[in-house]
Formats: sequence, structure tokens, C-alpha cells
Amino acid sequence: MISVGIVGASGYTGEELATILLGHPHAKITALTSRTHAGEKVNDVFSLPSDINTTFLEPTTENLKDCDVVFFATPNGVAMKMAKELLNNNIRIIDISADFRLDDYKIWEKWYKGEHCAKELLKESVYGLPEIPNQKDKIKTAKIIANPGCYPTAALLALLPICSSLEKQKIVIDAKSGISGAGRNLDSKKLFSTDEENFQAYAVRDHRHYPEILQGLQKYNDNLDILFVPHLSSMIRGIFSTTYLKYKYTSIEDLNNKYEEFYKDSHFIEVTDVNSFPKVSDVNKTNNCKISLHAIQESDDEINLIVFSVIDNLVKGASGQAIQNMNIMFNLDETSGLI
Amino acid sequence: MISVGIVGASGYTGEELATILLGHPHAKITALTSRTHAGEKVNDVFSLPSDINTTFLEPTTENLKDCDVVFFATPNGVAMKMAKELLNNNIRIIDISADFRLDDYKIWEKWYKGEHCAKELLKESVYGLPEIPNQKDKIKTAKIIANPGCYPTAALLALLPICSSLEKQKIVIDAKSGISGAGRNLDSKKLFSTDEENFQAYAVRDHRHYPEILQGLQKYNDNLDILFVPHLSSMIRGIFSTTYLKYKYTSIEDLNNKYEEFYKDSHFIEVTDVNSFPKVSDVNKTNNCKISLHAIQESDDEINLIVFSVIDNLVKGASGQAIQNMNIMFNLDETSGLI
Amino acid sequence: MISVGIVGASGYTGEELATILLGHPHAKITALTSRTHAGEKVNDVFSLPSDINTTFLEPTTENLKDCDVVFFATPNGVAMKMAKELLNNNIRIIDISADFRLDDYKIWEKWYKGEHCAKELLKESVYGLPEIPNQKDKIKTAKIIANPGCYPTAALLALLPICSSLEKQKIVIDAKSGISGAGRNLDSKKLFSTDEENFQAYAVRDHRHYPEILQGLQKYNDNLDILFVPHLSSMIRGIFSTTYLKYKYTSIEDLNNKYEEFYKDSHFIEVTDVNSFPKVSDVNKTNNCKISLHAIQESDDEINLIVFSVIDNLVKGASGQAIQNMNIMFNLDETSGLI
Amino acid sequence: MISVGIVGASGYTGEELATILLGHPHAKITALTSRTHAGEKVNDVFSLPSDINTTFLEPTTENLKDCDVVFFATPNGVAMKMAKELLNNNIRIIDISADFRLDDYKIWEKWYKGEHCAKELLKESVYGLPEIPNQKDKIKTAKIIANPGCYPTAALLALLPICSSLEKQKIVIDAKSGISGAGRNLDSKKLFSTDEENFQAYAVRDHRHYPEILQGLQKYNDNLDILFVPHLSSMIRGIFSTTYLKYKYTSIEDLNNKYEEFYKDSHFIEVTDVNSFPKVSDVNKTNNCKISLHAIQESDDEINLIVFSVIDNLVKGASGQAIQNMNIMFNLDETSGLI
Repeated sequence: MISVGIVGASGYTGEELATILLGHPHAKITALTSRTHAGEKVNDVFSLPSDINTTFLEPTTENLKDCDVVFFATPNGVAMKMAKELLNNNIRIIDISADFRLDDYKIWEKWYKGEHCAKELLKESVYGLPEIPNQKDKIKTAKIIANPGCYPTAALLALLPICSSLEKQKIVIDAKSGISGAGRNLDSKKLFSTDEENFQAYAVRDHRHYPEILQGLQKYNDNLDILFVPHLSSMIRGIFSTTYLKYKYTSIEDLNNKYEEFYKDSHFIEVTDVNSFPKVSDVNKTNNCKISLHAIQESDDEINLIVFSVIDNLVKGASGQAIQNMNIMFNLDETSGLI
Repeated sequence: MISVGIVGASGYTGEELATILLGHPHAKITALTSRTHAGEKVNDVFSLPSDINTTFLEPTTENLKDCDVVFFATPNGVAMKMAKELLNNNIRIIDISADFRLDDYKIWEKWYKGEHCAKELLKESVYGLPEIPNQKDKIKTAKIIANPGCYPTAALLALLPICSSLEKQKIVIDAKSGISGAGRNLDSKKLFSTDEENFQAYAVRDHRHYPEILQGLQKYNDNLDILFVPHLSSMIRGIFSTTYLKYKYTSIEDLNNKYEEFYKDSHFIEVTDVNSFPKVSDVNKTNNCKISLHAIQESDDEINLIVFSVIDNLVKGASGQAIQNMNIMFNLDETSGLI
Repeated sequence: MISVGIVGASGYTGEELATILLGHPHAKITALTSRTHAGEKVNDVFSLPSDINTTFLEPTTENLKDCDVVFFATPNGVAMKMAKELLNNNIRIIDISADFRLDDYKIWEKWYKGEHCAKELLKESVYGLPEIPNQKDKIKTAKIIANPGCYPTAALLALLPICSSLEKQKIVIDAKSGISGAGRNLDSKKLFSTDEENFQAYAVRDHRHYPEILQGLQKYNDNLDILFVPHLSSMIRGIFSTTYLKYKYTSIEDLNNKYEEFYKDSHFIEVTDVNSFPKVSDVNKTNNCKISLHAIQESDDEINLIVFSVIDNLVKGASGQAIQNMNIMFNLDETSGLI
Repeated sequence: MISVGIVGASGYTGEELATILLGHPHAKITALTSRTHAGEKVNDVFSLPSDINTTFLEPTTENLKDCDVVFFATPNGVAMKMAKELLNNNIRIIDISADFRLDDYKIWEKWYKGEHCAKELLKESVYGLPEIPNQKDKIKTAKIIANPGCYPTAALLALLPICSSLEKQKIVIDAKSGISGAGRNLDSKKLFSTDEENFQAYAVRDHRHYPEILQGLQKYNDNLDILFVPHLSSMIRGIFSTTYLKYKYTSIEDLNNKYEEFYKDSHFIEVTDVNSFPKVSDVNKTNNCKISLHAIQESDDEINLIVFSVIDNLVKGASGQAIQNMNIMFNLDETSGLI
């Protein structure tokens, strides 16, 4: 059994992580820490599917020293502070926060508005999107996994099979998220009476997932830029991402085959039949991503391609993907404990 | 035109009040006060259907001195402090909070856990449920209206036509409210991700509407007691109250006629056909109350009576009823500005 | 008082129309027709805010002959069959269905897959979007109003102020609608358990509002084309339309001023401050449209412009706009009966 | 591996059953039948978490002959017709419909308004509520399991620990269900635009779960009767049942202990601390039932007891409980495949 620690276990991603791990056949939770809830019984704070007879601990290395792997389900800025000491204790790290997602600390500091205090670890971290070609090999041996953001997961999965062959363009990514994407901290924008029967956009120019998506695409193609507009939809979970781009003329069937071929070893990715309409409910509480392609011919040479990609933001967009990464790191079946 | 002031205008009831008043043909808003938002433009805080070109003021008598009537849409304990001075300025008061609802200050102090600082005004206040027999005459001349709570409005309207003739019993009132009933202040219990796809009970033994309902019933019948259990349902607005009681044998049609007769001059009360199922959506954003009767024979002498009563908690259960009271106080048509 | 008839009154738009008309100070409902419900009492079918003591009639000219104006809230294909006879009886028509929206009957027949049986009336019909420059004059004297579709209303209002000056481009319109947009007829796609906690796209290449939006834009600019993708969001009412386009370099403030100037006489259009985030709840059950501009600089010469436009699909997107058109036709204040 | 057949697999309970079975370590789906969808691929009809490469079959004994157990997720009246032939083929039956729930066929025929065509099998069927004392032994050897209704499951679990010791009384059961409880067949009452932001009661005197609850209670106590009022709440899944009864004076702690003792071997039942407020979300997509007790003293001799019981109507109230029964029948761990 893998001994698992969770730092910052009291948010939605921490709760989701604990829920999945309770049903995992090869991992057991050794330590749950929460600065806010230290000393309280876990069952009094969470609604977990089964009892977990333990209390929240203070987030110290001492309390985590028996873990094989520690997940950070914390606000940004916590993992970078504790990472070095954990690594020194031979504990591997899966960071669900954003501390290790951007390769260039200057870009991190610009977007996250603070000093990055573990710059030297950035080159050791591996971006934990296992569907990137050859990424699983890197994940297997990684000391630190930077678990991707929810929007970047949906956006990159929609584009990876073709992004290296795209012409210079500005891709439009119109993304819609459930309210849990905004976290559990109190904010009048997250009240039921605000969000029920509602829809709105936010953060047009300053969402921190913008540089993360861009980094993911530009690794394959310097010519790409994006317009990324996130929206909040009246549902707890789910991301529905609609991507608009131009592509050289091809039949939609051929393109669909290309996607299917690209993802043929990716258990959690389903490329639907062409012209299908995947729904958020299709992937609710699963680690799956559904991708559908639609095309409208623009000219003899070009099509407008519309890609729908759908995930559960708390599972494939956060905690499920973190478990998937853990499974790969510890040579388990990639799907272990996941549905 | 009636000059209206609203104290504590930044909660749901204050916003609803402002919304209704903006469409009222015979009233105009003269002053909106809010300790929290003083100095801010009203339009920056509220989403009102039309613009209101004014800023929030500090809640002082000076700022309210040109009003004919002042509504309190405040937390409990505010109206009682300002009431005397307003009355001295010949300003009438409609208190949507609970300060003047209970006749006996000792009961108030027990349930609201504080000192009542305007005890001498309690006897001058009139309980603003206009459907109580002869109540409109009292409302017309009242200096202070104690606007009823949302649950008591639904509960009393369900029982008024028969409560004087009931045998000694404990009536079960199983009430379900939308989330806005809990107010706008931040609380993790009111987050979208908490309340969506959910249902729960609360405050079984300590809801402050319990003594208010009881007082309303016992004015007519000392033998009555209630079991009152409020629940939160996954909707923004609405109260659905299911009342269970025993009644001497009668045909359900006769009883329905009795209800219709009792409410024949009550514009906002609709007694449906027997065995109907009123819905919360039937009264959404209206000042109406729908009441339906169902009976199950218990013996030759007795029936089990089930009464459904449905209101919008923010309208008939708060701000709409407050406007209804204002209309009566100022000799307008009771329905003026209301739908 | 204007005598109003409603044909096909049993869908959502018919019910909304009846609701608004019941509160209209200068119009009264003379006849409600419904093939399905003929002979039934209106109150047994609808939940209207006040009682309407009448029964549904068969939709015949005879039953409508006392009307000054007849609204069609019918499926497509009904208004075109009855229009001529009504006009011959000097009854004006406001068609909320799509029969008269497309100027070219061949385009109509291609998209609506049937024969247009009142081609000769197309040139007499006026597209009822009163915010189009000089359109109110045409509406005043029109015999037939083609009331715009919900998506076209949101899309065109977002683009009208600038569409004549746009360079050749394909504008992306990513639109999100509440479930009521799909109508009241039974379909498993509209079940609560399907749509709650869900989000999906539909009709990428074949939505009938595509040619309507295109016609509206190309009147001003032949160079424009659109990519239009409609989505269903988990709410009853509302359209949130996100429009992506390129615009010659300008400051966002100047552009906002241009929009404000363009709509300065349009009571129902609110251009928000720049960089604002309008919400569907801001316009719920009102005839308002909120429009917000956001810009991201592309080069020295060009910006990427993102326009949010928000309406209630059943009000400004259907029945409210129909009433607005009626008000203009009968020389009433444009806002009469509307909020 | 247990070979499982599902008859009538296209409703919500059939889909839920298939979903659970796909993750079950000791059972495999051998045949899925659906009269409506025969010949269609299962994946085209359902959104299952993983692919199931099979097509729906016609519901014939021939198609089911290799099964060890067949589940009926059909409308009432189907299981009784096929039961005998399946039993003759040594296939055990778990009927999620109501055909075998009532011991007395005359009561069945009165409430279900038809002829019971397998009266002789009623005495062989076992009521599949495993938490009834000694019931598991009967389930182990049963040929036919009558899987309980959703409301009866919640109602009986709330009362079983004490019903034998109750005085003669009429217990009030005010139950609230998610919309999926009404099934998947098309009905305007189940449209999103009808149920969102709504709440209503239904079937006051004629819900078929009334005789089922009564039978369950009267096995232990002839003196009991119930008032049962079901309501529809705006959520997909879940039952929240509020039960009001009188009980001889006792401390609430002692009573809670009695409940805990009663359910000490029932894995899926959690008796919470006294005065707790369980929520529907606590049990979402699990087979758990949460029970909470609240008491209000009535006299020296008597308390008013309020019991909250909460389940997921599609899991513990239908398909999860069916799997629990299967596990017991085949000597597996009761919790196998369930969370």
C-alpha cells in the first residue's frame, strides 16, 4: 500500500482526493493536514462516503514523514515552501495547486503576483497531463508533479492532437465551469441565490490559466496564441470547453481518426463520433474527458474547426488526475481507484 | 406620492422592497440607507430593474426626516433603537425585522437572546397580516407595523379560517423554504455547491418563528400547540408549508367553502379547488398565497386534514406584504404596485 | 384599450405574453386561442399572476375579428397561413414565430424545410428589433411585425453599433441559453434529470437563427460571416452571448462611448462600464439587454474585441419585445407594461 | 463471477444498476434487455462510466437463460409475467418493481389496479430490506427478492428500531423526493422548466408506497397507521423523510443508543449524533442511509419524536439496495461493488 498524505485537505479538491483514496485498492491515507481544522475529526468536517477515523494534523514535515507521496490541495504558495524538505525526506509530491505549473518563474511571478521561493525545483517538476506524448515516462520518475489546472486540462486535451500542425492564429477558447471551480472559500459570488438561474463570464484578461494553456500549446507551436474567456454556469461540477480554430482542409472523419489514433492508449479520453454533442453529465464524477469535433468548411483550403471537450473539474481537472499521476508514479494500473 | 425610506437596504428583503417600490404608482423612494454601503451608488450594489440615481445614506433620523414611512429591512435589534425618534417626527414604521412581532417582551428576549429596548412601543405595534379578521382597520391607523415572518405568514394563512374551532392538539407544520430565506450574509451553508442538489432540515427546536406562529394561533385558541420543522430546499425563493391536523368530521367541500368564505375579501389569497396541488412556481415573485385542502377520514367523527400553503418568501413573506401594509395604511388600493 | 388576440397561447412565449398583457395599462386580452386546449379554462392551463376568466378558443379568424392586433406564439408555419385573412380584417400582426423573419423566401424554405405560403407578404413585414436605426418608424406603420429570434436579438444588439465598420471576418458567437428556449413540447432532452447539473452544445451547423443573424449583419456589411454555436445551460431563462471579433485599434473607452451613443435613445439597452461582467440574473424577467465590452490588444492596428450581451430569452428575446413592438405600433410609450 | 441479466434496462434504475455492476468485482452483465431499445447499442442509449460493448436484447427467457440472477427494472406488471419461467430455469430474481412487495394480492390489486398474475409466487418472495432483523437469512435463500420502494426504504429504516413498542397512533411521514423518483418517461411535470425553482406535493391519498410502508410497520405493530405525504423537490436524486411520532418519555441519548444498537451490524446505516441535521448530499450516489433523532418533550410521560432519514432514491432506494440483496444472496460481502 502507498502511504498518502494530503496537505490542505479541507477544500473541494482535498475532499475529492480523500473520497477517491478511500476507495483506492493500493493506497491508504496516512495523514490529513489542515491548518484551519487541525485537531478536528475529519468526519466532522467532510461528508465522506465512508468513515475515516482520524483527525486533521498541522501541516508539518514531521506529520508527513511516513508518507510515500504528499498531495498539496492548498492555495498557491504553500507547496513551494514545503517541497524541499519533503523531497529531502524522500517523499514525492503531487501539487494540485499552481506552484510548479509554469516553467519560467518570471511568468509565474507576473501572473501569481508574488515571489516564487522554490525556483530551483521548477526544472525537476513534471507537468502531470499524462496524455501528452511521452509524458508518462517522465511522470514515472518525477519527484514533483505539477498537476494541471482544470481549464488547461480541457483546453489542451482538445488541441494536443493537432497543435503542432496549426497555422499561426489566435484560437478562441470559450470555457464554462461549474461553481465548485471557484473553490470553497466564502464569497458572495458563490452563494446559491447568486448562482442559481444565472450565467456570467469573468476574468477575461487576467485568468491564471491563460499562461498555463499558452505554455502547453507553445511547446509544440510558437505560432499559437489564444483568446480565453472563462464563464460560470449554474452547476456544481464540470467544465465544457468550446474551442474555435482554423485548420487546413481535411475531412472531418480523417481528423476524427487522427484524434482517435492520438489517444488510442489514453484510457480516460473518449473521442466521440463526429458531430456528436458530449454533455457535462457524461463525465460527472469520472476521470474521463470526452472530445467531439465539428467542422464548417471555410474555403477549398480551410475549415473552421470546433472542438468540444468536457471534464469533471474536480476529477480529471484536479483530484482524479492527481490520482492518475500517482498511479503512474508508483507503477500501478493508470486507472486504479478511478472510474 | 408617499415618500418612502428604507433602512438596511442591502439584504434580499431591502432589494426586493426597492424593486417593488420602483414600479409603485403612488410611492417614491426618498432615502435608502445602509451602514455597510453608505456613500456607494445604489446601482453599483443592486441589480434593480430600472436605474435609481442615488447613493446609500447613513441610517440616521436626519436622513429619513422627509419620509412618510420608513421600512426596516435590517437585522433584528435595529428598528427598536430608531423607532421612537422616527415616531416623534411623525414618521410611520413598517418593520420587516422581528422587533415588534411578539406582544410579550419576555418571550422576545428569551427567543431573540437580548434586551428589548422599546418595550413601551410593543402595545402600539400592529401585526401586519392583513388577512386576519378586522386587522386592516388596525393597520390603517397603526404607527408601527410588525411585518410577519415568512413561515408564520404561510402557517397562519393555512390555519386562520379554522383555528378557533379546533380541539386541543399539536399541529405538525412541516415547512420548506428557498435558500434566500436564510438571508444574504456569507455562510458556507448558503454556497451554491452546498445547496444545489440538496435538502435538509434545521432549527428543530429553536427557530424564532415558532413563538410567532404560536402567538398567532393562541389568540384564537389556547388549546393549540405546534411541532414546527423548517427545511431548506434547493430553490432561491418560495415557502411550501404542509400542515397536518385533526378536525371534526366534515366534507372537504364544506370545509373548502369555509376557507373561500373566510378569504373572500382577501385579494392575495387563493383557495384552490379541493385536492389540488399548488406549486411554489405558481406564486413566484407575486404577493399571492395559494392554499389547498386535503382530507383523510379518521373515524366517523374526525378527519385528518392536510393543508398546503404556498408563498414567495421574499414577497408575501416579507417585502410584498410590507407594501400591502403600506397601501392599507395610506388608504391606497391594497394591491397597488403588487402583482 | 388595445384589443389583443393571442394565437397558440399554450407555449412558454404565449404564457409570458399573457402574463405581461395582464399588467399592461393600455391593452386587454380579447381572445386566447389554442388548438390543443380549445374549450379549456385558461386558468386551468396556465399559472398566471392574476385570474383571467376565459376559455381557450379555436384559432379562427372569426374568433379574432374584434382584435386590433394578433400575436402568433405558434410553431413556425401557422402565422403565414392565417396572416392574409387577418390583414383583410384590418388586424395587425406580431409574429413571434419565424415565418416572416427572413426576407428571401428561398432561404426560409432551405432552413425551415417547407414551402413558404405567404411569400407576397414578406415585403410588407418589418423586422421587429426596435433598436435598429430608423426601425421604429417602420414598426409604427407595419402591418406585420416579424419578432426576432432570441439568439439573433442578443447577437445583433452586441454588434449593431459597429458592424458597418468591420473588416471582412468570421465573427465567433458562442451563445448560451436557458432550457425554456427549447420550448414546452415534451422531449427527453428537456427533462429536469437531464438538464440539471449539465451543460452541452447543440445544432452547430443547422440552427435556424444562423441565417437570421447573418441577414441582420449583412444588411450593413457584406463582408461578415459568423460561426454560431448555441449551448444549453442549466437555467430556465436567459441568453448569455459571447461574441469574439477583430476591430481596428481604438481605446476601449472610446468604443464604449460609441455604443452608449448608438443606444442613447434605446430605453431597454444598458451599455455597462467597460470591463464589466453582466449576469443573466441582471435581466431576469425584464425586457432589458445588458452589453459589455472587453478588449485585448492584438497589434498596433487591431484589437480583439469581446462583447457580452445578456437578455431574458422569453422577454426581450420573445414576448417582451413583441409587446415593445405593439407599444410602438400603437403610439404608446415604448416601455408601457414592461419592466 | 455472477452472471447478471437486467430486464427493462432503459429507465433510471436500470441505468444505475448497470453503472454499479460495471464496477462490481464479482458480477458481470450477461444480458441487457429493453423492449424499446432492442437491437440498439447500449452505449448509444446510456451514459455509462465505461464502455459496455453490447446491444439491448428482447426480454425473453431464452435471452436470459445463462444468467444466475435477473433484475427487473421494469414498470409494474412485467416481472410477475416472466418470473415463473425464470425460476424454472433456476434463475433467481430481484424485482425492483412493485410486483412482489405486498404479501396480500388483494391489496396489490386494489392499489395497482390490475390483476396479479403470479399470486402463488408471493409467498416465495422475500422483502429485500436487509436491515430488518433476521431478514438477511431469508434473503440468502430467496428465489425472488421484492426490492423495496424508495419511500418505504427511508420510512421503515426511520421506524424499525422502535415500531414494536409504539402506542396506537397515526405517524406523520412528510417525504421529499428528487425528480428522478418519478421515472424517465416523458411528462410535462418532469420538464426542467417546470421543476427548477419549484416545490410541490402530490398523491396525498393514493401513493402506492402507502400500503407498502403500512405493511412493513404492521408486521411489528397492529396499532400503527400513517399519514404519508410525498413531495417533489428541485433535485435529481435523494429522499429526505421527516417522520413525526409520539414516544414514551425517554432521554434522546438513550433512544439514540437504541438505534445505534439496532443497526450495529448494518453497514449502510449511520445513526448520527443526536440533534444532527443530515443532508441529501451526504448520501448522494451512495447506498447509505443517515438517520437522526430529535425530541421535544410533550409531558412527563411522552415526547414528540422527529426522525430524519436520508437516502439516495436510485441507490439505497432502488438499484444499490438491489445489488446489496444480490451480494447477500450469493454469499458475497454485503458491500461488494457498493459505496
